[in-house]
Amino acid sequence: MKKKNLSIKEIAKLSNVSVATVSRVINNRSGFSAETREKVLKVINETGYEANNIAKSLRMSRSHSIGIIVPDIGNFFFADIVQKIEELLFERSYATIICNTARSSSKEKAYLKMLESKMIDGLIVISGAEQFELGNINSDFPLICIDRMPKNPESTIFISSNHYQGAFEATELLLSKNCKNLCIALHRKTSSASRERLKGFKDALKKNSIQYNEKNNFLYLPAEKTDNKVSVIKKYLKSNPDIDGIFAVNDNIALVLLDILPQLGKNIPEDIKLIGFDNTSGAYYCKPKLSSVKQNTSKLAQRTVDSLLDIINGKREQVDKYQLESVQLVLRESTD
Amino acid sequence: MKKKNLSIKEIAKLSNVSVATVSRVINNRSGFSAETREKVLKVINETGYEANNIAKSLRMSRSHSIGIIVPDIGNFFFADIVQKIEELLFERSYATIICNTARSSSKEKAYLKMLESKMIDGLIVISGAEQFELGNINSDFPLICIDRMPKNPESTIFISSNHYQGAFEATELLLSKNCKNLCIALHRKTSSASRERLKGFKDALKKNSIQYNEKNNFLYLPAEKTDNKVSVIKKYLKSNPDIDGIFAVNDNIALVLLDILPQLGKNIPEDIKLIGFDNTSGAYYCKPKLSSVKQNTSKLAQRTVDSLLDIINGKREQVDKYQLESVQLVLRESTD
Repeated sequence: MKKKNLSIKEIAKLSNVSVATVSRVINNRSGFSAETREKVLKVINETGYEANNIAKSLRMSRSHSIGIIVPDIGNFFFADIVQKIEELLFERSYATIICNTARSSSKEKAYLKMLESKMIDGLIVISGAEQFELGNINSDFPLICIDRMPKNPESTIFISSNHYQGAFEATELLLSKNCKNLCIALHRKTSSASRERLKGFKDALKKNSIQYNEKNNFLYLPAEKTDNKVSVIKKYLKSNPDIDGIFAVNDNIALVLLDILPQLGKNIPEDIKLIGFDNTSGAYYCKPKLSSVKQNTSKLAQRTVDSLLDIINGKREQVDKYQLESVQLVLRESTD
Repeated sequence: MKKKNLSIKEIAKLSNVSVATVSRVINNRSGFSAETREKVLKVINETGYEANNIAKSLRMSRSHSIGIIVPDIGNFFFADIVQKIEELLFERSYATIICNTARSSSKEKAYLKMLESKMIDGLIVISGAEQFELGNINSDFPLICIDRMPKNPESTIFISSNHYQGAFEATELLLSKNCKNLCIALHRKTSSASRERLKGFKDALKKNSIQYNEKNNFLYLPAEKTDNKVSVIKKYLKSNPDIDGIFAVNDNIALVLLDILPQLGKNIPEDIKLIGFDNTSGAYYCKPKLSSVKQNTSKLAQRTVDSLLDIINGKREQVDKYQLESVQLVLRESTD
């Protein structure tokens, strides 16, 4: 349907509800079912009537709650950014509903559906393993993706650390410390963030005219806690005894290496220099203290909240669709 | 009012709504406002009419979502137990709404209110600094408290690790390793869990006929990241140069000590033996590896979910009001 200058009365007629109900829906008062709301919104969307203003009022003070889909709150980076987002949203009178999906796509679907039923004003989706489907959520629903894109991006705002830059700089740091035989340590199942980190590693080698191949320069660690990481690392070292620099795509992997490598006769940093990613608290308390790439979670959280509230307040056109935040190397003993 | 055998019609009349609406409320269908629901429930509660059955149906399949109030998802123990609870609830077709309160009581109040408006079927409140107020939430609303009691406990179910036992055993372990001068390291602002740990520490000293006093046996560390912990520890060591065993009420405090004590000439475990609480991943990766008291988060989560769903399904009388779960010492290098 084309945009028309319909009155509330006409919208009420098309929706088969009373004028009072349309008004209640638009002004976010209670007294109507979720179905009624959907019905009225459908008519408003389809007729496009004063879409901006109505959409704006619909989004103002509707529920003052925002949903966050997070793959793993036990992960330092995720917990950190979620807490910072919650804090900023609360300052701006929004409550945050956190949903932990344990990286399961079926859970993700269930939680998207649940959040939809809870009448949230906006949604933040934080990095998981792969792309995700928005389900029934309208493409113009206020949505910010951190580190990760939905299957049909359309008007989605994407905010991320510059993982590529971090990996590139971490790799060049190892080279500058006279490491000759580098490898990247990662899991087989990767996220978009770790793909970017892998790309940064490869490009830094290329730039320095270093050939690489999967066999020698890739140390794939099992992701499961129960798997025997020691034997995997042992096997890798047997084929690659000269390895002297490792870029681990995250601190968790780096900490495993920091624990196991000395058991196999490789001391850090004397024999192998090691750098991680995320600058977790573990990186500070381990021995030797771990060098790492630090994401600026404060700025990422600020960008996310500012952008989301701009969209909610009808200022979508002001928001950059693709926002990259710089990262920073934090050098400690493991690369000395 | 006394319990009466009122009909739905009478409840409708008392609530000033239609019979159809009462039926919808009881059967958890949509088509009524939150206010209507409250009104009808009030009448049902006040008249006590078939309270068990109605309460049961009200609670069956209402929204299939459970709220969790957690003070700090960045804390290893909290994140761990929240994830385990989420997993168990999801297996039983419940979605989990996580609210992070950053230990702020005003946030806690706001989140309780928000959760109430989201029509959750049950609520789990995890330990914060002090007691909390339930606000408008009805005293018979399905509620489980972990580590912490509401101001008016009434019928609240309380589930906790046996913090007392853990602290007692940790302290006796230090004594068994020939430590003569023990101290407990803690923050000034304590939670009910750390009060129990303090009690366990004191009682273990008492049992072993050791006098203690606040000046010598208490090392209060500042909670803020920005405060200068080094000078606090230095000052403490100056007054207590013979300290040879420390029980830290949590691993975070233990890790700070593990980092700072060697800088002040006290090596662990040679000069001072150290044990923490929570068995975080940091305890494993630090050097020397930290001994710690492990809470059984799997069992705590299982108890919580079982108890909550029993209450939701009208089997409150089957649920123990006070459930304590044993903890376990995990011995590593810091107490060798």
